[in-house]
Amino acid sequence: MNHADEMAILGRRARAAARRVARSPGRQRDAALRAMADALEARTPSLLEANAHDLSTADAAGVTGALRDRLKLTAERVQSMANGLRQVAAQPDPVGEMLGEQVRPNGLRVGQMRIPLGVVGIVYEARPNVTADAAGLCLKSGNVVFLRGGSEAQHSNAAILTVLRDAVEAAGLPRDALMSLPSTDRAWILAMVQAEDWLDLIIPRGGEALIRFVAENARVPVIKHYKGVCHVFVDAAADLEKATDIAHNAKVQRPGVCNAMETLLVHAAIAPAFLPRAAERLRASGVELRGCPRTGALIDVTPATEADYHAEYLDLVLAVKVVDDLDGAMDHIATYGSDHTEAIVSENYSTVQRFLEEVHSSVVIANASTRFSDGGELGLGAEIGISTTRLHAYGPMGAVDLTTRKYVIRGSGQTRN
Amino acid sequence: MNHADEMAILGRRARAAARRVARSPGRQRDAALRAMADALEARTPSLLEANAHDLSTADAAGVTGALRDRLKLTAERVQSMANGLRQVAAQPDPVGEMLGEQVRPNGLRVGQMRIPLGVVGIVYEARPNVTADAAGLCLKSGNVVFLRGGSEAQHSNAAILTVLRDAVEAAGLPRDALMSLPSTDRAWILAMVQAEDWLDLIIPRGGEALIRFVAENARVPVIKHYKGVCHVFVDAAADLEKATDIAHNAKVQRPGVCNAMETLLVHAAIAPAFLPRAAERLRASGVELRGCPRTGALIDVTPATEADYHAEYLDLVLAVKVVDDLDGAMDHIATYGSDHTEAIVSENYSTVQRFLEEVHSSVVIANASTRFSDGGELGLGAEIGISTTRLHAYGPMGAVDLTTRKYVIRGSGQTRN
Repeated sequence: MNHADEMAILGRRARAAARRVARSPGRQRDAALRAMADALEARTPSLLEANAHDLSTADAAGVTGALRDRLKLTAERVQSMANGLRQVAAQPDPVGEMLGEQVRPNGLRVGQMRIPLGVVGIVYEARPNVTADAAGLCLKSGNVVFLRGGSEAQHSNAAILTVLRDAVEAAGLPRDALMSLPSTDRAWILAMVQAEDWLDLIIPRGGEALIRFVAENARVPVIKHYKGVCHVFVDAAADLEKATDIAHNAKVQRPGVCNAMETLLVHAAIAPAFLPRAAERLRASGVELRGCPRTGALIDVTPATEADYHAEYLDLVLAVKVVDDLDGAMDHIATYGSDHTEAIVSENYSTVQRFLEEVHSSVVIANASTRFSDGGELGLGAEIGISTTRLHAYGPMGAVDLTTRKYVIRGSGQTRN
Repeated sequence: MNHADEMAILGRRARAAARRVARSPGRQRDAALRAMADALEARTPSLLEANAHDLSTADAAGVTGALRDRLKLTAERVQSMANGLRQVAAQPDPVGEMLGEQVRPNGLRVGQMRIPLGVVGIVYEARPNVTADAAGLCLKSGNVVFLRGGSEAQHSNAAILTVLRDAVEAAGLPRDALMSLPSTDRAWILAMVQAEDWLDLIIPRGGEALIRFVAENARVPVIKHYKGVCHVFVDAAADLEKATDIAHNAKVQRPGVCNAMETLLVHAAIAPAFLPRAAERLRASGVELRGCPRTGALIDVTPATEADYHAEYLDLVLAVKVVDDLDGAMDHIATYGSDHTEAIVSENYSTVQRFLEEVHSSVVIANASTRFSDGGELGLGAEIGISTTRLHAYGPMGAVDLTTRKYVIRGSGQTRN
């Protein structure tokens, strides 16, 4: 049997489970989430044992540093997965909510009801905690999840999934609410992303190569997040202290993540006052600055190249550019931005308003750090990813973004003429 | 220069126009829509002349019947396009609306603002009125439209587009708010649907072959509507008069459209009372009935095959099946349905409620005809298509469905720790 045929068998099981999960009461789904959390805690030793297997394979392959760290499970990390599931359980149920019921002139009542998407595929790498996070958000929103984790974490992922499926079944929901591919081969990813009859959405989480592979081969709709080249624009009317704090926080607080600032744009009128002060603060935290010639006239920087303004450094490196005005900043963002997150620092009402209205990145911020572009910080409880494509969801995605809305019409015998 | 390179040049123009259109006030976009309507009326003779050219080509090719009729423009049809644009102009502006602003514990105000998708591609066939309808809805929602009409209507479409672009320019918006491909060749469709850097969405409108071609080749996200196999379920607790009226209306009022009923499901308990009565009424309107054995035991029908329950007849033919109960009806819909529109006729509260909650087609209806599944009837003003895939939009799509939502955060200097 080829992969597509095997995928169809798995897909049919997923669809059957999806009908049951979609009609389950929110209370039952929340109970399952809490049972999953309890089971992860209770069975921590078996998870660490499976993880040790993956770690020894990684060590034999010479994996070190950040990659090995992402792979590693500890009792604290298992605890943190469990807590995440409990937080998701505590959120309101997005399924079934009625939106905007109106009465038409013929007496028909027309509204929209939130329903699950159906079967959601998650393709991810390295971090085993995604297994629990994705399973939790998909179950919360009444979906079946189809997981494909990386081969480097295969024993950890399989162990976590077994624990979670046992808990889901004990809570009276189908084990098949949580599905996974039988193998981590690329050929299986291909079969999965082309299974448009069985999956409703694919969310790839990982490096740009993985995301492009999925996007280029998928027939199932994909929500993707390529990268975050986030900007902070310090306007002429910025409060210097807020601007310095925000620029420092956006770059330094956690430089390796997608919502960290990569380019600082500075209004020419405030650059002489702001740049020396900001540079001192950033350099004290070890940030390397690369700037345009106008920046170089004010502070000592490495000259920035075109590539610097496109770069997602994910490191303590910052591109700096002096711009003439708000339009110059917005033009730069339109040219080099990645539609992720941009912030303005300004006390001028009209300038802030124009920036918030006209910059069409997925998150736009006035007078706060780009680091707040995060599902947890925005009140979503947890996030399944950050979309930088505009269809369906834009920005951090929570459980509610794993739903769609069907029209519900209530009549009293109406016919059309 | 190859198609992809030429497409990139057009795409850059579209993106530049999209920034201007997105920031234009709703008043200006509505004025442009009214100017487009006026211009279509004023220049009707030139449109009819171009259409005559297309019609003579069609006649030479032996095109007749429904296809020729769809192609034909008349003064009334131009008037109807103009009126459609005025109706769209009269709707509220979806762009800029703020949704659900909340205050986070740290004082950040977090909301979502509706913004245009950007550049929307429409691939369609035959009917020249789609040129005006699609241009109107895309402009209303602040998007640039990229049109690819069928070769059979190329002169009509080009003439309409010229009139509309003149009007848009006179209203102070860029001509490039309305773009089209330089040729109707399939190779150009291919270049368009793969131009993921320049287009944000493709909506194919037309036959299943066209939609599959787009879906299978697209890198740009696609919202598709394959077909409408719509069901009416007459429950044991149905009011017989309502049930008969609704079944008749859903099948007969306009059988050639996607929201017409294709299969009638009847609860076994009411079948002896309902089926003879319904059959008489349907046959009087020329409907051919094809039924299951239990149907055949009650009325005279051609035996239905498996293919009949999958069929989108778009004609005066109806498949009939007697089912044991609500679950039997819902199982049938899950197996054979197309996620378009399903209706139940019943006076039983719990039965209706279960049907509306558990059937996850894009439109579910209690006690009214499936023919109400239509953007105009649901209050959307006009529709750009009907989505039967769950991502982004599900069911009839209006101007508001051509928008997305970005996060807007207002702070007062917050940084993250």
